[in-house]
Parts: sequence; C-alpha cells; structure tokens
Amino acid sequence: MTDPSTSESHYFSSNPPPPTLPQHTAQANAFVTHHHAHSRRVVLLTSGGTTVPLENQTVRFIDNFSAGTRGATSAEYFLSQGYAVIFLHRQFSLLPFSRHYSHSTNCFLDFLSEWGRIGEGDEGEDGGAATPDVVVKAKYRREMLSVLRKYRKAKEQKLLLLLPFTTVTSYLFTLRAIAREMRCLGNEALFYLAAAVSDFFVPPDRMAEHKIQSGDVPESTSGASPGGGGKKLVIDLDPVPKFLKRLVEQWAPEAMIVSFKLETDPALLLKKCNQSLDRYAHHLVIGNILATRKYEVLFVEEGSAQWVRLPTSDDKSGGSEEVEIESLIVPEVIKRHEKMLLKRAATG
Amino acid sequence: MTDPSTSESHYFSSNPPPPTLPQHTAQANAFVTHHHAHSRRVVLLTSGGTTVPLENQTVRFIDNFSAGTRGATSAEYFLSQGYAVIFLHRQFSLLPFSRHYSHSTNCFLDFLSEWGRIGEGDEGEDGGAATPDVVVKAKYRREMLSVLRKYRKAKEQKLLLLLPFTTVTSYLFTLRAIAREMRCLGNEALFYLAAAVSDFFVPPDRMAEHKIQSGDVPESTSGASPGGGGKKLVIDLDPVPKFLKRLVEQWAPEAMIVSFKLETDPALLLKKCNQSLDRYAHHLVIGNILATRKYEVLFVEEGSAQWVRLPTSDDKSGGSEEVEIESLIVPEVIKRHEKMLLKRAATG
Repeated sequence: MTDPSTSESHYFSSNPPPPTLPQHTAQANAFVTHHHAHSRRVVLLTSGGTTVPLENQTVRFIDNFSAGTRGATSAEYFLSQGYAVIFLHRQFSLLPFSRHYSHSTNCFLDFLSEWGRIGEGDEGEDGGAATPDVVVKAKYRREMLSVLRKYRKAKEQKLLLLLPFTTVTSYLFTLRAIAREMRCLGNEALFYLAAAVSDFFVPPDRMAEHKIQSGDVPESTSGASPGGGGKKLVIDLDPVPKFLKRLVEQWAPEAMIVSFKLETDPALLLKKCNQSLDRYAHHLVIGNILATRKYEVLFVEEGSAQWVRLPTSDDKSGGSEEVEIESLIVPEVIKRHEKMLLKRAATG
Repeated sequence: MTDPSTSESHYFSSNPPPPTLPQHTAQANAFVTHHHAHSRRVVLLTSGGTTVPLENQTVRFIDNFSAGTRGATSAEYFLSQGYAVIFLHRQFSLLPFSRHYSHSTNCFLDFLSEWGRIGEGDEGEDGGAATPDVVVKAKYRREMLSVLRKYRKAKEQKLLLLLPFTTVTSYLFTLRAIAREMRCLGNEALFYLAAAVSDFFVPPDRMAEHKIQSGDVPESTSGASPGGGGKKLVIDLDPVPKFLKRLVEQWAPEAMIVSFKLETDPALLLKKCNQSLDRYAHHLVIGNILATRKYEVLFVEEGSAQWVRLPTSDDKSGGSEEVEIESLIVPEVIKRHEKMLLKRAATG
C-alpha cells in the first residue's frame, strides 16, 4: 500500500499514462498558444464521471454518477462570455450544444422529416436529384438553428477543444499535462473542475488481468476478488491522491481554480466545502446537493458562503424558456475571475 | 447474508421494485396483445450494462462495460426479419437507428447545415417564413434517409417498444414482468439476453444512505465503507441470484431463450458457455471475447459449438459497406427459432 503523503508522485510513476496523452497534450498546446496570442482567456472545464476499472481487460468498473449536464451547460455560457474552452469530458457524456438533443428521451430522428423537392443545392456527390431532402421539422427549426449557429461559430473560431477521458488515471494524467500547457496564460487561466472524480482506485499491481469469475478461488494479489465464501465479491480500493493540492501549488500556481463538491446530505455540505478550501487553499468551492443541484448551489470562498439559486416559479416572469442555473453560476465565477485579474494587475 | 438456494425469491421480496414497473408492465401488455392478435413473433431483447448502486442516494455505482452496440444493432436486424421488438435497455445506451449517429465521435450537428429558402412547407407555428431550413448535408442524406425511413416504419407500425433500466434490480423486476406478459405467445416468444448483467450487488440492508465519505469511520452495517485504515475503501458484495434458471423454468417455459457470455480469456470461453447451458438448460449461449466480439462469436448448443465469423478482409468482395456481425448472428438465431417452432408443431 502506498503512503498517502508521497502517494501523488508514486501514483503517476506506478500507473501507465493513457495512450492518447501525447496527442491530447499537442492539441492543448496548439489551442492555448493560439488563444494566448489573441489575449483570450482560457477555461479548462472538466465534466462527467471518471471510472475505476476492476480488471485490466475491463468488463467491470466503478463509476461516479454524472451525465455531464453541469459541465456541458457551463461550457456554452463560458463560450458566450468570450472564453475559449478546453472541455475535458468523460467519453459519451453530454457535450456542449449537442446536449440539447443527445440524451433526450426523444430520439433525435424524431426531429427530422423527409421533404421531396427537386435536387437544387445538391452537392452532387450521391447524384441525388431524386433523393428527397431530410429537414428539421418546422416546430423544432428555430431552436435547432440557434444551437447550430453557436456550435458552428465555436468550431470555426476554434473556441472549443473536446478531449475525452474514461478512467480516473487518464483523467489525472491529462489534467496535469493540460495544466502545464496553460501555465503561459498566468492568471488568465481558469480551472472549472466539474468532473465527478473517483476518490478510490485499484492499484495496477492488485488489478485482475481477466474478468473476475464469480465462482473462482480468490487470487491473493487481486484488488478485487471473490471473497472467502467463494461467492461474495470483496473489492479493496486505495485512496486516489489529492491531486488538487498539486494543481494549486505546482501545476497551475497563478490560475484561478474552482472546484465542485457534490454531497447527498445537506447537513454536511458547508463543512465539506470549507474543509476542501482549507486543505487546498484554492479560490472557490461550489457545493451542491444531489437532489437540488439543478436549482441551487453554494459558493464557498475564504470567509464567505453564498447561495446561488434559481428564482422560484412564483418569481418567474412567465417566460416560456426554462432558466438553467449555469446561466447564473458562470457569470458569478467570471466576476470573481475578473476581480482577481484586476487585483493582481494593481499589485503586480 | 442470503442463502443462494432460496435467494431468488428473497431477492425480489427484499429489494424494492422500480417505480416505473407498473407503467412498463402495462406498455409490454399492450404491445404483446397487439402483436399476438396479428400472429407476429416477439423478441425481448436486453441491451447495455446494469448498475449496482453503492449508496441509496447514488453517487457511486459499479457498472458493466457495454455501450449497447450488440443489442441496438441486433434489434434492427430482428425488425427487418419481421419480429416485433421489446428493447429493454440501459438508459442512454445505444438505441436502434439513432445508434448510427448518437455515440459518434462526430457531433450529429456536424451532419446539419442551414439552407435559406422561402418558407414554403412551413407549419407556421413559429411564423417562420424568414427562418432558414435546417437540412441534412447532401453527402449524409442518402444514408440518413434510409435510417429515418426504417425508424419511422418501426414507430408507425408499433414494432419497437423502448423500455429503459439502470440498476440490476430494476432490470430483473422488469424482465420478470415482461416475461409473464409474453407467456401468451408460447414458443413464438424469443428472449435474446444481450445485456451485461451484474453478478454481484449490495443488499439494501447493507447499503449506505448517503455518499460514502473518504475519511469517515466505517458503519458496521454498510455494504461499502472505508476500511480499517480509515482511508481505503472495501466494498463487500453478495451474488445476484441466477435469475436465468427461473426464467427458463417458470417465467417463460415455452419460449426460446438465448443468453450471451462475455469473457476476456479465450481459454475459458467454451467451458463457461457449456457450464451456463448445463446449469440453465436453455437453448443457446452465444459466447464472445471482449477483444474480438465485433468479428466472431461462438454459438454453443447442446452437443455442438460453432463459430460465426465475419469474412476476413481477403474474402470481402470489395463492397464499401462495412458488414456488421449482427447481420449474421440474428438470422442464425431465427433459423434455430424456426426449427424449434416446426418441431413443436410436429409433435404438438
């Protein structure tokens, strides 16, 4: 077992880096360099849950509940406020823009209909004058057009970089690499850590190679193995090192860093947020409760705690659009980032 | 701890049924009644991985690796062969038809472009003569049109019923309820169990109510709690009862039942398939290896084992379309279903 005090460097030396790391690092480097040259602020936004594989050839894994709604929604608001966004997300979790349609209970095919017109405007590739058009139905058109235009603008202006992860190990390696690439941005860099990161993992030397068999005799070296009765399964996990400390102190010492804390017990929320702030000495913890996270969050900073809440339905002015709480969270975060920039400019 | 020999009825009495059960049962009843009246065969197809929550207010869970590709793809081939399909799937896993676009590395918004024409054909709802159309780009149009037409046909003729699950408990309750609804179909019913079902679970009386805290003292009653060191996590799981036995013997005694076996170690595959067949005495086990599951599967029946493989690239006749192995699996399964129907008709 690793000693927690030195476990973080041990973690990176004893776990294999993800094969995608060189490519993702190069993409982040090009992205940061481009926006740094244009004096644009960059936010690294993490989103979705990390997995903890229980076998090397992974059939089973532990996951953290997160569809990626907070991250994908926040990314759109950061883009609308002029930030360039590196979106480090769990593979197949919600993405900015496509989130409006992808995890819908309606299949997106329900938005489409065919419409037989003469093939003008064809690009000819399929010789398709006889092929009807496939069009978005009129009642969905206006909203789809709005989403499509924002998506294309972000894409054409290279304001959004999508980088996927799956395991907690690939998440941590990639986070460290991107943070290093972002150091040149100084305090123009913002970290908005909305991903649900595992607190525990199975170290490689205790990981089963193959799918754990329900009837097998336990292997003595296995982190997860059927228990003594031959039928129960006991999974034995080590703590993931507290990477946030290293991020704040070494990887991104000048950046603004915002973390999230998800709890289920309201009585614990403020205490856990304050603990996190005490321990890592970063700038802001946004606390939220599983059951109410779409309506209220708690901003905890040194010496203050403030709820950010959606207006209740009584207060609503009858607008038909649903207000997303990220439309309140992101401007509040940006206000604090700007205050920090002004303060450092004044003292720097 | 439950005694495995009587654990199955205990499982259903000690775990709460999912809140969706009455609604899903009613939907299955209407679906089966409709197709039974039209003498159409019905397949219950399960797809995607089941979760095992570690807390009642679930932040963490154990999952089984499965995007739902096998199930979603197979469903399309069953539909094309005239079966009505109940698609019992993990929420947000791949669905028939939309699978072609939803988990793509390309965002589906990349398939769309706007095209400004005079607003003829508008349904007027948004007064949208000035709103440009949103159309599928010409190069994707032909394939999208083909998918859209099949999807709409299945929908209009009510050939496809989509029922979601998340936890292993909700999966098992729903499977049992649907199987009972399908008994009226006799041997016209087919079960194609492609879901990746957990072998282990945390019994409700050992489940933590709130998110497990990494620094807490363990609760003695908890199925998952930080270990003795106060920093490690030990998860203690019980075996899920072997529901397949009950399905074969009691819930669906006349139906044809096909199960899947996923392994990572090729040396174990045939043995595990034969074990399953011996234990449950159902009709067919389709074995597959994680690394090669898209190219080959092993059909194991009483007294025979036969590989079903995609032709290698040398054998291909140069067609540009990629062949999906489910286009071979499903007809092989249907051939066996038909043989069984003929045999029973002859002896019945």
